[in-house]
Amino acid sequence: MTPLLKSFLEKWGKEVDASLRRALPQSSATIHKAMRYSIFAGGKRLRPILVIAGAEICGLPGKKVLPTACALEMIHTYSLIHDDLPAMDNDDLRRGRPTNHKVFGEGIAILAGDSLLTFAFDLIAKNAKLLRNRCPLGDILHSVAEGAGFPGMIGGQVLDLEMGEGQWQSRKRAEQIEILRKIHERKTAALIQASIAAGAYLANAKRTQIKRLQEYGKKIGLAFQVADDILDRVGNKELLGKKGSDLVNQKLTYPALFGIESSYQKATQLTEEAKRCLNPFGPKSNVLKDLADYIVERTY
Amino acid sequence: MTPLLKSFLEKWGKEVDASLRRALPQSSATIHKAMRYSIFAGGKRLRPILVIAGAEICGLPGKKVLPTACALEMIHTYSLIHDDLPAMDNDDLRRGRPTNHKVFGEGIAILAGDSLLTFAFDLIAKNAKLLRNRCPLGDILHSVAEGAGFPGMIGGQVLDLEMGEGQWQSRKRAEQIEILRKIHERKTAALIQASIAAGAYLANAKRTQIKRLQEYGKKIGLAFQVADDILDRVGNKELLGKKGSDLVNQKLTYPALFGIESSYQKATQLTEEAKRCLNPFGPKSNVLKDLADYIVERTY
Repeated sequence: MTPLLKSFLEKWGKEVDASLRRALPQSSATIHKAMRYSIFAGGKRLRPILVIAGAEICGLPGKKVLPTACALEMIHTYSLIHDDLPAMDNDDLRRGRPTNHKVFGEGIAILAGDSLLTFAFDLIAKNAKLLRNRCPLGDILHSVAEGAGFPGMIGGQVLDLEMGEGQWQSRKRAEQIEILRKIHERKTAALIQASIAAGAYLANAKRTQIKRLQEYGKKIGLAFQVADDILDRVGNKELLGKKGSDLVNQKLTYPALFGIESSYQKATQLTEEAKRCLNPFGPKSNVLKDLADYIVERTY
Repeated sequence: MTPLLKSFLEKWGKEVDASLRRALPQSSATIHKAMRYSIFAGGKRLRPILVIAGAEICGLPGKKVLPTACALEMIHTYSLIHDDLPAMDNDDLRRGRPTNHKVFGEGIAILAGDSLLTFAFDLIAKNAKLLRNRCPLGDILHSVAEGAGFPGMIGGQVLDLEMGEGQWQSRKRAEQIEILRKIHERKTAALIQASIAAGAYLANAKRTQIKRLQEYGKKIGLAFQVADDILDRVGNKELLGKKGSDLVNQKLTYPALFGIESSYQKATQLTEEAKRCLNPFGPKSNVLKDLADYIVERTY
């Protein structure tokens, strides 16, 4: 990790954590505990960092988009809580700790997820107020709802669910590749893309700028998922906080289709493409370029 | 039911159904089927009707708020899908048909709910665009997110869950009454209140108008829940489409605390109070007043 990226992540990671702490209800009610439990479970804060970087590269100080940054982390966290449920991936551990439903029960876990998702949209509305409505709130909502909803993340999880336990193995290879691309684009890339776009929208960026950043977001999102699949396969329990389960569950992943070596190449190629999208931004894009590199770096 | 209310419900019920049909994805994907299954399961469309009536009483034609009307119905439907899950109320039937998870499995039911909730916020954003952003989108979002989220509906479901299976019986009576009030206010009244407020906000209503309509919405929401508790107790399977399960599950309800006779009185009192909130609107409020009466009527 470059010193530039390191200091950016440290600075904004702290700011995001402080904002999340302020935003979330502090009460001892079980559901509030459940919400805080998963929000403060040691996530990398990639999505909020991208909201902030997206705003800053378009000229708006990161401080001004903290509510939306928190919103995107809440949407990400709700999706993890629901994905871990017994009816979905049935995971007992995440980042080395028991999953939400293991601690609070399934009912509260479902409601904690619902609550985080709902609260996220409230925070985005609050952010527009903070900017005195000088931002295209409707566009931001549409972009986030698409990234998080059926056209994006939820659709990816549905496909993932339908292709679990080797159900992809009976398909033709061309179809397998097509389905894998769809899962990666929707399950992971869509919300990452929506995160950086949200920052740009809040900064009232031009359409061409937003398009470039969306393209960058999509590429690093795909790279991120390939890297995650590699990590699940080659191990590194420490980073994952859990044993990789993709092989056991016969999941459709990049390494499963192309092998480890080709997966590394794919991830590297994607990050190179991602960085090229940012060239028109000049030196302002250095942090985002370093971030793209780091996504593959961390798999070694 | 008065002829005025009947024709209003028929006209707008059809419009809402047509809008929902247009808004929802038509594909044969399982999750889309699951979303449509619960949306078109014969609901009363109370919340969308209130969005429309709230707009019309403040001078905006109902046609202009159909996307938000659909959004509120989607939020209501997502909450039913999640509430019926085995980890929550564990209901096999709703309105005489198997519940969502019984037909599509728990995983898809959770995701169909998540998808409806997310899509709802997209529709609200679309509605603002339809009105050329001449409405306080941020206020609408905040109001809907509060009504649907932890301060409202989700918080009510949490309390309901925590008080299930007779867990309220060990509390003191004053505490029981207080908890019951909170459950009703949050679980049912909050989203009903947010529905009528959304219509008024979209019509750029004055603050005093919005306050009166919110008060009306809260009162009929409470009346509605008392009436529902009565129906669950006294039967009428036809209307409910399921056997009342509150007694078996030892739920904290109005009839459980005060008996049936007193519950009827309470519901009637609430609808009278609701109607009084509307007096300043004059004859324009007749439909909403008839609606208030109908809520208690249907329990006889």
